[in-house]
Amino acid sequence: MLIKILGSGAGGGFPQWNCECANCRAVRAGAPGFAARTQSSLAVSADGDNWVLLNASPDLRQQIAASPALAPAGNGAVRGSPIKAVVLTNGDVDHISGLLTLREAQAFSVYAARRVLDVLSGNRIFDILARNLVARVELPLDEKIALTGAGLDLGLSIKAFPVPGKIALYLEDASAPDFGTKEGDTLGLEIIDHKTGRSCFYIPGCSKIDAPLVRRLEGASLVFFDGTLYRENEMIEQGLLGKTGSRMGHINIGGEDGSIAAFKRLGVARKIYVHINNSNPVLNASSKERETARAAGWEIGEDGLEVLL
Amino acid sequence: MLIKILGSGAGGGFPQWNCECANCRAVRAGAPGFAARTQSSLAVSADGDNWVLLNASPDLRQQIAASPALAPAGNGAVRGSPIKAVVLTNGDVDHISGLLTLREAQAFSVYAARRVLDVLSGNRIFDILARNLVARVELPLDEKIALTGAGLDLGLSIKAFPVPGKIALYLEDASAPDFGTKEGDTLGLEIIDHKTGRSCFYIPGCSKIDAPLVRRLEGASLVFFDGTLYRENEMIEQGLLGKTGSRMGHINIGGEDGSIAAFKRLGVARKIYVHINNSNPVLNASSKERETARAAGWEIGEDGLEVLL
Repeated sequence: MLIKILGSGAGGGFPQWNCECANCRAVRAGAPGFAARTQSSLAVSADGDNWVLLNASPDLRQQIAASPALAPAGNGAVRGSPIKAVVLTNGDVDHISGLLTLREAQAFSVYAARRVLDVLSGNRIFDILARNLVARVELPLDEKIALTGAGLDLGLSIKAFPVPGKIALYLEDASAPDFGTKEGDTLGLEIIDHKTGRSCFYIPGCSKIDAPLVRRLEGASLVFFDGTLYRENEMIEQGLLGKTGSRMGHINIGGEDGSIAAFKRLGVARKIYVHINNSNPVLNASSKERETARAAGWEIGEDGLEVLL
Repeated sequence: MLIKILGSGAGGGFPQWNCECANCRAVRAGAPGFAARTQSSLAVSADGDNWVLLNASPDLRQQIAASPALAPAGNGAVRGSPIKAVVLTNGDVDHISGLLTLREAQAFSVYAARRVLDVLSGNRIFDILARNLVARVELPLDEKIALTGAGLDLGLSIKAFPVPGKIALYLEDASAPDFGTKEGDTLGLEIIDHKTGRSCFYIPGCSKIDAPLVRRLEGASLVFFDGTLYRENEMIEQGLLGKTGSRMGHINIGGEDGSIAAFKRLGVARKIYVHINNSNPVLNASSKERETARAAGWEIGEDGLEVLL
């Protein structure tokens, strides 16, 4: 299985259009050790010919242009695409609005939890994906299903599972417990290659590494994990937004309650942070936070990084 | 007034993600005479400091990154943007979905016809633009209004007027006359600089140049006009889509019923095609269609083109 990081940034990307935090200023100025990042998405393929997107970011058109493997196949047809399926982990703008780029009467499948499919149905703009061509498939929870798209077996299965998190920002209900968050609003994914039996995990949003998640990840070969913030309070401390990480549905990387500490005894062979927010000090290659993460065996995801599993 | 073409392509851009027409193959291969184009949007400024977007394309984040003038001002605030308003000409995906890029608690104004504002309200994903920060202002028809945004007078006025066209694809009602199209679904804009009194027109979608439009445009200094297709049937002839230009709400450039012919006696000083579809032969700099347009006094819009008026 081949996995490519299309976008390693969180919502807004890096730099973010309206942000002048130290990181955004540095990357705009081309400072060494700072790499621009588009928004959160992976592409996965069992055979190198047909691809599955894990989330569809607003930067998808740019990400496709930067990935020759995602261009039409050059087989003589005037329309076509190697993208045969999209799997969504939640209803966030940075994970679903790239679907609007995949219009133009092309067949593929969209997999999502029932609650996220309801968001697509409730927002008529997504009808730009012709109902007779684009299958909308409900992801069962904790059940392995084979991925298909445009009539093809894609050689991969997905097992989706709920993780602690939060409903999409634009759907928050201030009067409801947990802002209206329900099971299925935030998913982790295990992607399994039929031929090799190998699997990896993709969890771009997760507010807590609880006991069920620990059991799932123990001994995993490869995990792409929520690297949104380094510190619970960094957005507040930098004057960017009055919200903590847990309020936004994201665990921090550092500290006793962070993901570095939680993964320490999980025996995961390869660990890569994705969905990295512009405020995160690990975006600076010479920061002590980057060094701490590296020393704990973590890689900081970059756009274009390819992993063969 | 300074006008910049952020994106000169039609919906899908050039190349389009799933297209292998001759033009898309050529631009992907880097053939001479073919320039990539992002999707349809202009930026306008009276003072060079504060900017108004005319339409917000799905490529907006990439367009902002390519335009230093649209980066935050560097005045010490950690958040900010010179983008103070967005004016929408219709509800098409290629003209409204860039609004999803302008989130993150930033104040600006969105101007649109009532029917397009209703589309934004009806698609809850646009609630990512906080209602208390982002004003949604109804554009009156045939009435000049001063543009403001984030509490600032932007030094520009807009006069919006209906032009012949079509309702957005995802809103089409097959059982209704004209697919449910009503007045206000497709607007042309006249943008007027308060200080100089100069004005230009922006009409990225228009299916017919009728008598009221002729009267409006006669003697204009500058018109950005719908250059979607060169021929009414080119999408069908190239095997791309079974629709004519008029079915899609766009007049063709060439022929007796085309925009070159219609503009011939209008005395417009500068005429630039925008919203150019990937199928259009004018995208090939050495095509006879490009030469025909050039000989008739037309420029073919390119991303990044700036005009000082």
